[in-house]
Amino acid sequence: MKIFLLIFSLVYSLFSFSQKSNSSVHTITENMKVQEKAWNDGNIKAFMKYYWHNDSLKFIGSKGITYGWQKTLDNYLKSYPTKKEMGILTFTIIECTQLSETNIYAIGKWNLKKEGLDSLATNKVVSGHFTLLWKKIHNNWLIVADHTS
Amino acid sequence: MKIFLLIFSLVYSLFSFSQKSNSSVHTITENMKVQEKAWNDGNIKAFMKYYWHNDSLKFIGSKGITYGWQKTLDNYLKSYPTKKEMGILTFTIIECTQLSETNIYAIGKWNLKKEGLDSLATNKVVSGHFTLLWKKIHNNWLIVADHTS
Repeated sequence: MKIFLLIFSLVYSLFSFSQKSNSSVHTITENMKVQEKAWNDGNIKAFMKYYWHNDSLKFIGSKGITYGWQKTLDNYLKSYPTKKEMGILTFTIIECTQLSETNIYAIGKWNLKKEGLDSLATNKVVSGHFTLLWKKIHNNWLIVADHTS
Repeated sequence: MKIFLLIFSLVYSLFSFSQKSNSSVHTITENMKVQEKAWNDGNIKAFMKYYWHNDSLKFIGSKGITYGWQKTLDNYLKSYPTKKEMGILTFTIIECTQLSETNIYAIGKWNLKKEGLDSLATNKVVSGHFTLLWKKIHNNWLIVADHTS
C-alpha cells in the first residue's frame, strides 16, 4: 500500500509539473504575441511590457550589452523613431524550455519587414535570432536577459 | 525546540545550496579556461569538450542556428582551418548564474586577436558577446545552447 501511494504521488507530481510547465510555456507564447502586436502598432513602451523593469535587465545586441529597462527602451526609441521604421515584426518560437519553477529559456527567430524608405519603396526584410531568459517574478513571467543577433 | 530545528535546517539547506552553487559556477569558470587553452593550442576538438555531444546541441551564430555537436565542430573547422586563423582567444565572464540544480546561465565577452594575414602583418582584434546555457548531465556541466554574436 505504501509503495502504491509513493508511486501515485510521484506520478501525480510529475504530471502536475508537466501541466504547470505547459501552462508557463503557453504564457510566454501569449506574451510574445502581445509584444508583436504592440510593435506593429508602433508602441515600443507596450512592447517593453514583459521586460523586467529593473536596472539589472540585460540586452545583448549588436552594440554589446545594455543594462537596465530604461536604457533598453531609449535604445529602441533611438533606433526606431517612427512606426514606418519599426516595420512589421514577426516572432517564431523555435524552442521554449522550462528549466525550473521560475526559469524559462526560449530560442526563436525574428523577422522585420520594412517598407522601402527610398524612392523605389522596395520592401526590405531583415531577420535574426533571439535567445531569452524569462523569470517568474512576483507571479509574472518577465524577460531578464535578451540576446538578439 | 522544533522551531529551532526548523530554522537550523532551513539555514543549513540555504547555505548548502549556496555552497553547491558557488562550486558549480567555479566549475564553469574552470571549464572555460580549459576551452581558451585548447583554442589557443589550435585544438578545436578539445575546445569542443564541454559542448553537449548530442544532435540537440544548439549553436546560434551569424549563420543562424546550427543543430548538433558534429555540425558545430564542422563549422568551426571550416571557419578556422589553421592555428594562425584561430588567433588568440580570451573569454571574460560577465555573469554566471545558477538557475537550478542542473542549469547555469552565463553571459560573457569573447576577444580574438589575429595576427595579420596580409603583407603588413597588422594585428586584428575581433570581439563579441556570448550567452551560454550550461546543463548538468550525468554529473558533468555541458553547454547545451551557445548564442554567440
